Amino acid sequence: MKQASIRHFLNTQDWSRAELDALLAQAAAFKCDKPGDQLKGKSIALVFFNPSLRTRTSFELGAFQLGGHAVVLQPGKDAWPIEFDFGTVMDGEAEEHIAEVAKVLGRYVDLVGVRAFPKFVDWRHDREDQVLKSFAKYSPVPVINMETITHPCQELAHVQALQEHFGTTDLRGKKYVLTWTYHPKPLNTAVANSALTIATRMGMDVTLLCPTPDFILDERYIGWANANVAESGGSFAISHDIESAYTGADVVYAKSWGALPYFGNWAAEKPIRDRYRHFIVDEAKMALTDNGVFSHCLPLRRNVKATDAVMDSPNCIAIAEAENRLHVQKAVMAALANQ
Amino acid sequence: MKQASIRHFLNTQDWSRAELDALLAQAAAFKCDKPGDQLKGKSIALVFFNPSLRTRTSFELGAFQLGGHAVVLQPGKDAWPIEFDFGTVMDGEAEEHIAEVAKVLGRYVDLVGVRAFPKFVDWRHDREDQVLKSFAKYSPVPVINMETITHPCQELAHVQALQEHFGTTDLRGKKYVLTWTYHPKPLNTAVANSALTIATRMGMDVTLLCPTPDFILDERYIGWANANVAESGGSFAISHDIESAYTGADVVYAKSWGALPYFGNWAAEKPIRDRYRHFIVDEAKMALTDNGVFSHCLPLRRNVKATDAVMDSPNCIAIAEAENRLHVQKAVMAALANQ
Amino acid sequence: MKQASIRHFLNTQDWSRAELDALLAQAAAFKCDKPGDQLKGKSIALVFFNPSLRTRTSFELGAFQLGGHAVVLQPGKDAWPIEFDFGTVMDGEAEEHIAEVAKVLGRYVDLVGVRAFPKFVDWRHDREDQVLKSFAKYSPVPVINMETITHPCQELAHVQALQEHFGTTDLRGKKYVLTWTYHPKPLNTAVANSALTIATRMGMDVTLLCPTPDFILDERYIGWANANVAESGGSFAISHDIESAYTGADVVYAKSWGALPYFGNWAAEKPIRDRYRHFIVDEAKMALTDNGVFSHCLPLRRNVKATDAVMDSPNCIAIAEAENRLHVQKAVMAALANQ
Repeated sequence: MKQASIRHFLNTQDWSRAELDALLAQAAAFKCDKPGDQLKGKSIALVFFNPSLRTRTSFELGAFQLGGHAVVLQPGKDAWPIEFDFGTVMDGEAEEHIAEVAKVLGRYVDLVGVRAFPKFVDWRHDREDQVLKSFAKYSPVPVINMETITHPCQELAHVQALQEHFGTTDLRGKKYVLTWTYHPKPLNTAVANSALTIATRMGMDVTLLCPTPDFILDERYIGWANANVAESGGSFAISHDIESAYTGADVVYAKSWGALPYFGNWAAEKPIRDRYRHFIVDEAKMALTDNGVFSHCLPLRRNVKATDAVMDSPNCIAIAEAENRLHVQKAVMAALANQ
Repeated sequence: MKQASIRHFLNTQDWSRAELDALLAQAAAFKCDKPGDQLKGKSIALVFFNPSLRTRTSFELGAFQLGGHAVVLQPGKDAWPIEFDFGTVMDGEAEEHIAEVAKVLGRYVDLVGVRAFPKFVDWRHDREDQVLKSFAKYSPVPVINMETITHPCQELAHVQALQEHFGTTDLRGKKYVLTWTYHPKPLNTAVANSALTIATRMGMDVTLLCPTPDFILDERYIGWANANVAESGGSFAISHDIESAYTGADVVYAKSWGALPYFGNWAAEKPIRDRYRHFIVDEAKMALTDNGVFSHCLPLRRNVKATDAVMDSPNCIAIAEAENRLHVQKAVMAALANQ
Repeated sequence: MKQASIRHFLNTQDWSRAELDALLAQAAAFKCDKPGDQLKGKSIALVFFNPSLRTRTSFELGAFQLGGHAVVLQPGKDAWPIEFDFGTVMDGEAEEHIAEVAKVLGRYVDLVGVRAFPKFVDWRHDREDQVLKSFAKYSPVPVINMETITHPCQELAHVQALQEHFGTTDLRGKKYVLTWTYHPKPLNTAVANSALTIATRMGMDVTLLCPTPDFILDERYIGWANANVAESGGSFAISHDIESAYTGADVVYAKSWGALPYFGNWAAEKPIRDRYRHFIVDEAKMALTDNGVFSHCLPLRRNVKATDAVMDSPNCIAIAEAENRLHVQKAVMAALANQ
């Protein structure tokens, strides 16, 4: 069966380092020369269970620039809710089972992108990434993760921006700080999980800086980080000390997220999180770095997650990283559609 | 006037059998060879008064594959509500009259697709199909029914799937059962009306199986069925007996709908409908058929309308029927845009 | 820096008369020959803070017909709310600052269209046109006004329709009446401001007809009208007398708007506005004109703003004006994308 051999893009961890390097090389080529015909006459369904600006724009334009077409679908908004459990009697809200949704889409399109954030009620459930995995299970065509509990497209865009900044594809030896930062809401850990994954994969010396052990990421991603260090060299450490973490850093990457032990019990988590507004990325902290570069996946609340001065500094590469979403996603789509 | 001679696709009953056969032949050709240039530089407005997944995706991609472009509009959601009555003082919610909407769209696009479900308050009003007919009345370009109180695109996709399954375009002599099935909500009769219409048109021996006379379809469609039988051969009967209806069937097509005599009075209809959950299509019923094929227009609530076993059986052609929406709609668009 | 020299299309008043004439000539050419390649491989982001039917359809199709692609974004609906003030601590609803939104979009697309209606709370704030100006300030690519507190694309479409109707590009000497008309809601003054601006720019003899001095437009646009008269010839007067304003008119353009002195205090404004339902454009008033042509930007509530008889008269050119939106916007996009 053809389906058995289908290659999806669910996590970078499923792809070899050589394959990731090839995607990054293709992305760099697309950045120099936007048009292409790798998706000529082909199409991708972009299934958004959560809203998007950058992801939707970059995928839609990426498909167009390669001669293809993206259809944007918003189940539960433009269409009905979908059932993901198997064997249930569907007498609730869901009008259609993922089996039919994925199979039918696969008859229409050549690729399917899925954005499905956690429900933020039960992390044990959210960490199973059921929506994405169900699409991958039933879809006869390749599935791309457009952010669920990880964000692999952001990972590639981030690495491309770092490679451009440092003028080299070899990021080994760079001191990389992934810092938790404040946000009034308990956000998704996806980009944090992803940053940890890709930074260790690239062999950098990675520090996860967060206020307390409550903010340490899920053990799966800590495990990936440790496995990557073992394979790619570099190092991985967890720190709760701002000063030592920032000192001498080459890269500061910021992200806010909710504390996992309080997951779903957000009323209790809120006062704890509110104690750490001072984790904001500001000029004083950046002054501790080794002329470090700053980035963030966007959207970013100015003067909450990072100050205006940091965002408007020439060392901020967040806009370049956002642009690279276009290029890396074209590379991913081209690779998957022509496998 | 050019408008006087415009051909719309509102119901298959308005098209000759030879014309329908030509559309099906073109659809089969498109299934083998997706790209085309029949809509090169042309466009279609897809006007959705109700949500959609399959219809929107298949029309949007169909236009793309033929070199055209589809614009998706959702009045009352992306834009303002529309007035359909003529001569009214428009001091209510509607900001624009269908006359202007249809005329302006007709200046921009080459085709207009309309999805407008019944309001489910007064069947005497809904059965007039006012929204679709108003578009057809005022539009200077061809109008396509994307499901109102009938669903002619689904009809063609259904027939194409049956022709593929049986390996012949001649469906005469097949025993066809259109069975009512349970759904917690009182759904639209559109696909049921359409199945009855096209199955009799194709000369099959058609049985409408429903729990009680309350669930018999509107007399207009019963009338079409009888007229079609007279012209195409075959037969038409109404049954309330599950066993005899299924026995020896070649085709089982399922659809749920609300009981017309209780239309708008749904609180009274609900307990009546709830008595017939056992109309679910299951393996026991399918075992009575002559190795019958099962289909449904989708979306389908598993284990409510049909069991997992029926849906996952090799005799289920619902996914093929859904795929065929793409091909038949391309045939319809190509025919209308180049008349 | 390239950005310093970027040309936006925010208001016709920023463009020379020769430049506007060139856009109109290009629009007339596009009306005869729809396809083009001026946007081949290029793209535009259509950012809608308010809903749209005509604007969205005409921009989306215009981009397609020129070989480009439009991405439709609805912040606060498809995506998160945006912050426009600078230096604020973003701990409210907005998740992203316009600086990042505009810069990132500018990395993806070649043009940005913005629709942002007034908030209708404080005219002193709304008249600053902050959303549009912020996009223009931060965007590295040209920005097009898709209606904010003015509607320059509508202006060009309106002039094109008048030029077609009169068979000449020279509209000098025409008696032009911009009449306030009734609407149950206090609408935006954008199209009224724009009509006043472009009619005087074209050198016509312009009368602003409104019920009382409370309905006179903002002094900025009155100032533009007077400046235009000084430069282009023609005349400008304000009238509260229906009969004398209509008498001998060549053009009647209608629009409803809320009374500026009561802006934000709409409960007090409503009974005042409700006194002037008789400003409706009807056959009796049109009979006073010199076989005058009628138009409106649409949407229009029939028998509230204008009667059925006026709308269905051969002297109504509102549909032609709406069609011209497509052609003038293609001209604007082509000019800006290839500057």
